Amino acid sequence: MDTMKAIWWTGKDRIELVDVPIPEVTPGTVKVKLTYAAMCATDMHMVSMGAMNAVMREGGQCLGHEGSGEIVELGEGTQNSGFQIGDKVVMFPGSPCGICDNCKNGYRQYCRNAARMNTFCQYTVTKPSGIYKIPNDADMQRYALVEPTVCTIRAMDLSPISHGQSVLVSGIGGIGSILLNMVILSGASKITVSDPIAQKRDNALSMGAEYAIDPMNEDIVERGMEITNGRGYDHVFEVSGVPAAAPSCIDLLARCGTVTYFAVYPPTYEIPINLHSLYMKEGRIHTVFTSPDIMQRAIELMPRLQTDKIIGKVFDLKDGMEAIEAFHSSIYPKILLKCN
Amino acid sequence: MDTMKAIWWTGKDRIELVDVPIPEVTPGTVKVKLTYAAMCATDMHMVSMGAMNAVMREGGQCLGHEGSGEIVELGEGTQNSGFQIGDKVVMFPGSPCGICDNCKNGYRQYCRNAARMNTFCQYTVTKPSGIYKIPNDADMQRYALVEPTVCTIRAMDLSPISHGQSVLVSGIGGIGSILLNMVILSGASKITVSDPIAQKRDNALSMGAEYAIDPMNEDIVERGMEITNGRGYDHVFEVSGVPAAAPSCIDLLARCGTVTYFAVYPPTYEIPINLHSLYMKEGRIHTVFTSPDIMQRAIELMPRLQTDKIIGKVFDLKDGMEAIEAFHSSIYPKILLKCN
Amino acid sequence: MDTMKAIWWTGKDRIELVDVPIPEVTPGTVKVKLTYAAMCATDMHMVSMGAMNAVMREGGQCLGHEGSGEIVELGEGTQNSGFQIGDKVVMFPGSPCGICDNCKNGYRQYCRNAARMNTFCQYTVTKPSGIYKIPNDADMQRYALVEPTVCTIRAMDLSPISHGQSVLVSGIGGIGSILLNMVILSGASKITVSDPIAQKRDNALSMGAEYAIDPMNEDIVERGMEITNGRGYDHVFEVSGVPAAAPSCIDLLARCGTVTYFAVYPPTYEIPINLHSLYMKEGRIHTVFTSPDIMQRAIELMPRLQTDKIIGKVFDLKDGMEAIEAFHSSIYPKILLKCN
Amino acid sequence: MDTMKAIWWTGKDRIELVDVPIPEVTPGTVKVKLTYAAMCATDMHMVSMGAMNAVMREGGQCLGHEGSGEIVELGEGTQNSGFQIGDKVVMFPGSPCGICDNCKNGYRQYCRNAARMNTFCQYTVTKPSGIYKIPNDADMQRYALVEPTVCTIRAMDLSPISHGQSVLVSGIGGIGSILLNMVILSGASKITVSDPIAQKRDNALSMGAEYAIDPMNEDIVERGMEITNGRGYDHVFEVSGVPAAAPSCIDLLARCGTVTYFAVYPPTYEIPINLHSLYMKEGRIHTVFTSPDIMQRAIELMPRLQTDKIIGKVFDLKDGMEAIEAFHSSIYPKILLKCN
Repeated sequence: MDTMKAIWWTGKDRIELVDVPIPEVTPGTVKVKLTYAAMCATDMHMVSMGAMNAVMREGGQCLGHEGSGEIVELGEGTQNSGFQIGDKVVMFPGSPCGICDNCKNGYRQYCRNAARMNTFCQYTVTKPSGIYKIPNDADMQRYALVEPTVCTIRAMDLSPISHGQSVLVSGIGGIGSILLNMVILSGASKITVSDPIAQKRDNALSMGAEYAIDPMNEDIVERGMEITNGRGYDHVFEVSGVPAAAPSCIDLLARCGTVTYFAVYPPTYEIPINLHSLYMKEGRIHTVFTSPDIMQRAIELMPRLQTDKIIGKVFDLKDGMEAIEAFHSSIYPKILLKCN
Repeated sequence: MDTMKAIWWTGKDRIELVDVPIPEVTPGTVKVKLTYAAMCATDMHMVSMGAMNAVMREGGQCLGHEGSGEIVELGEGTQNSGFQIGDKVVMFPGSPCGICDNCKNGYRQYCRNAARMNTFCQYTVTKPSGIYKIPNDADMQRYALVEPTVCTIRAMDLSPISHGQSVLVSGIGGIGSILLNMVILSGASKITVSDPIAQKRDNALSMGAEYAIDPMNEDIVERGMEITNGRGYDHVFEVSGVPAAAPSCIDLLARCGTVTYFAVYPPTYEIPINLHSLYMKEGRIHTVFTSPDIMQRAIELMPRLQTDKIIGKVFDLKDGMEAIEAFHSSIYPKILLKCN
Repeated sequence: MDTMKAIWWTGKDRIELVDVPIPEVTPGTVKVKLTYAAMCATDMHMVSMGAMNAVMREGGQCLGHEGSGEIVELGEGTQNSGFQIGDKVVMFPGSPCGICDNCKNGYRQYCRNAARMNTFCQYTVTKPSGIYKIPNDADMQRYALVEPTVCTIRAMDLSPISHGQSVLVSGIGGIGSILLNMVILSGASKITVSDPIAQKRDNALSMGAEYAIDPMNEDIVERGMEITNGRGYDHVFEVSGVPAAAPSCIDLLARCGTVTYFAVYPPTYEIPINLHSLYMKEGRIHTVFTSPDIMQRAIELMPRLQTDKIIGKVFDLKDGMEAIEAFHSSIYPKILLKCN
Repeated sequence: MDTMKAIWWTGKDRIELVDVPIPEVTPGTVKVKLTYAAMCATDMHMVSMGAMNAVMREGGQCLGHEGSGEIVELGEGTQNSGFQIGDKVVMFPGSPCGICDNCKNGYRQYCRNAARMNTFCQYTVTKPSGIYKIPNDADMQRYALVEPTVCTIRAMDLSPISHGQSVLVSGIGGIGSILLNMVILSGASKITVSDPIAQKRDNALSMGAEYAIDPMNEDIVERGMEITNGRGYDHVFEVSGVPAAAPSCIDLLARCGTVTYFAVYPPTYEIPINLHSLYMKEGRIHTVFTSPDIMQRAIELMPRLQTDKIIGKVFDLKDGMEAIEAFHSSIYPKILLKCN
């Protein structure tokens, strides 16, 4: 049996680079040879704190849910699925079944029988309902970012920024820099970022942010109020996932403003919210999951993604453990794995 | 081979009651025994003027796309679709394939490979992706109205009525009375209907409309302006599909108002719109198709549907030709067929 | 100097019925003779816990901000304001100045120079920018409820209910029953109320609620999940303002649902929110202030308000202290004062 | 009496450069010394075809409604309006009265007693309710574009572009290039412009448009379908105001798309709309007026306006007739007048 390299969740807080059998195509599925995978905090949070209600499967499991690849085999019954061998593609993490209640009611992101796939490996097998074609001449590094872009577009859909509204983005790492890109692709004014790492603040400013705050050395609320002439921000997007950064977002809010807690916070964390204060501002709190309905829109938007600023480093899959270490160092915005 | 009664489109402007073979279940489909079907103008418009771009299939075809029924057979591979024999169900006219671009992008109503079904007959076969369970003790006449209710909810989704906004509904026949029901289930004020038939106006008033206009004997614009104290209506829903009724809707509009041309108009009809006048009011024109995502919401709303006012008459399927005649008489709001 | 009766905030937790000079009209203002006032929890919360950041003015102040009345005097410069002596009117609590930044940017509810008025008295003086005409033959008790209706419409505007979405209203006292009325005037399904007082639950059911939960003797989350077939509610409106009722609202939420904390909570109360759980549902938390832009829409909607169920008791202004006692007993939905 | 230069509408199709008395400040108004004015097609359309229902006032009238300036005199009663002599400002064309029904209901753009002002002159007098401060060090040419930007933001508010949706802008002259700027400041994909003038197409491409169509030498529908892979555009904004360009916008529309007829069309022009075709796509037609509520948001967005591409030429007010000629030549995007 042929094997492939894969980054595997093998136990509590344990990730390993392993050789595993290449998954085989079954009826109704297709096989994708991965080109690039992108690393996401959620992959790590599943392992370290059970985020997404994740419980390791018996025998462990492959990590990774962002990536680009190429169709290499069509399972029985998928010949009319619109795909051909050689098609360049990207995938939604769960291919919807189409017949559970959530699928039939327009909430395919909550499909009860989604076919999962993984990307920190060389091949993955999944159903066509979650696979999307990209251009044949696509830059495969760029398109490896389609899935995280979907999540940030979901944030834009749920908390739309009206032209001229002020926006602050807290936390501009991998996903934060993609969300910042979406904010720059909006009519936002006074685009402000907050991050303790100077290099990330500089990167954000070079992307188009107008103000940068160092929350370790500046009073973020005071500085934010100064920037907004005392009004506060119409939108605050908290992307760091750091509990310490969460409460001040509400203080930074303008009347009728929205805080979007975009990140996946530790499952045990509870933020204390003063409802009277929130009421006096008529404030709103949003969270953001995802939706496969956005995949095509994200694909269309790829040409406008500043990948030179967002992709921080590319590792070979065989150097995966090094990539994970680099991820935890928090220096780079987005880290990619070359899956060959 | 067993046969069933069916109302068949057999040629240009020709509809007949026929005996045809009962359709057989195939892999991936289930068979539904129909209980009640509801008649819709679209069925007739397809035959008479090619509405919905309909072209009669070789050998003719069964009509009807609204109805309620019961699962009587599960095709191969549908055992895990969530349905069991005996389940009471309603159907969306086209069961989405789940893998074409429209399905994958959240526009399942525009599925390129939808599995059709029909209801002016005793049995129909279709895929589970368009079938929805209803309560076991459901009033099957009431639930036969789920599909047209979906269309009217789509109108509410696309042209939402804010509490206190004024609303006029033009044309209160079958679908018009369901749409009126949706408007009554909103914060609409000054709910006004317009219809040339006195009996329908009376029915609408008994449902909860506050004002009724006879467009044949009253100046609808003058009367509408009087009712709204010269402001015009925030929403006008044109449901009659009669070209003569279309242009005055725009004159009836308040500043920042919306005309929703809900009906299916003759494919050759062109309405002249004065864009300068529309601009001065900042008016909007909407049309309404449908969406399967709404099916479950319509099911949940069935208890609030005034079926005693909406269902005008019930015919046995074997008296189908009489039912069609009654339909063309335009006396009754909604006509049902008992499909036994 | 002529005097009038008034209910006065005279000190910490102290309210008294007093005789005070009738306020005099000044340039740019008009004088309104009040007909009915309605009591609101906010009036009491200002006194007891400083809600709305209220600080008693030197010499105390009149309470009340909901009411209906009649124009009795036009101050200098208001002759062209569109009002005439004898006009029946209702008032927004703060007449906007029209020139501060909030007014000019469409947030007139946050006017920095609003002219206040009061209603627990016989006469009040304010600016025309916050006064709205009602029909000459208006039922003045009914229209005394315009202002609280505005707040509940604001809730509908900010958290719109799509047709078929399920809704729970927690707390159905005065404002709760008006909000329930707005929910009934929507396409809500499975309309559920929760209140510890049996009489209020019965009243709600008679208004059109479909389910009632007694949170003292039933597990509200378990019961709510049962009613919604395990989905939870698409909308939960918490109107009681009781901290103990707040956290379970989030547990009652369906995926992609919204909790609207409508009430004015104690200024010191902090609700703990688990952001990870909220994220898994893609839940939203909204609060609701108000807006004068809604006054006219509320006026238009008055004919559809079930005042027979909402108005619990009417006291004469001279029996005001008794009215306040009745208010604290929480037996009646809405209490009115006859201001003569 | 001191006089000033002004561009005056003096008769049917007649515009002249005249010397007129400088308007005097009256109670409740302030005087603004204009710095720059911007020319708009509407100014010309009023004169040539009575657009905006304009009727020339007895004695003629000053033209122009876009501009920037400086407060030079405060009328009686405006000392507390928040303005001081020397403040840099921009103005909404009609200062709202704050007490008519439209003002009180949140439609201040339809104020029945708006105080008008003009900008093709050296001084103008108006009420503070329509005046907005800009930074003291503002580039006065850039801020002269606030008012047209407001209109284009209104288009974004009414027809919001979701990230990844495709957009076509038809007509990229003065206002078209500002609207294009707003589209670029959105998550639009496949940003396409259409204009017969090569120079304007090149300018648009340099601003960030991705595709340009020459409607005189290319089949715009065919080319648009090619660019969008046969889907059509999610949004089409028609800004040229040329009747010949209007109908094809609907053919260019994707399913569930929106055509925004942004321009002011000739008052006699009627566009024929096939409602059946529009229905099959579930298409929408929007128009766009304006709103003062957007002024501050436009001010905040000025730093992101590509004025180097939008401002085509600046004339001295005394060369106003030459400026009008240049305007009619349609070569430049936006033409400014220096009002000294």
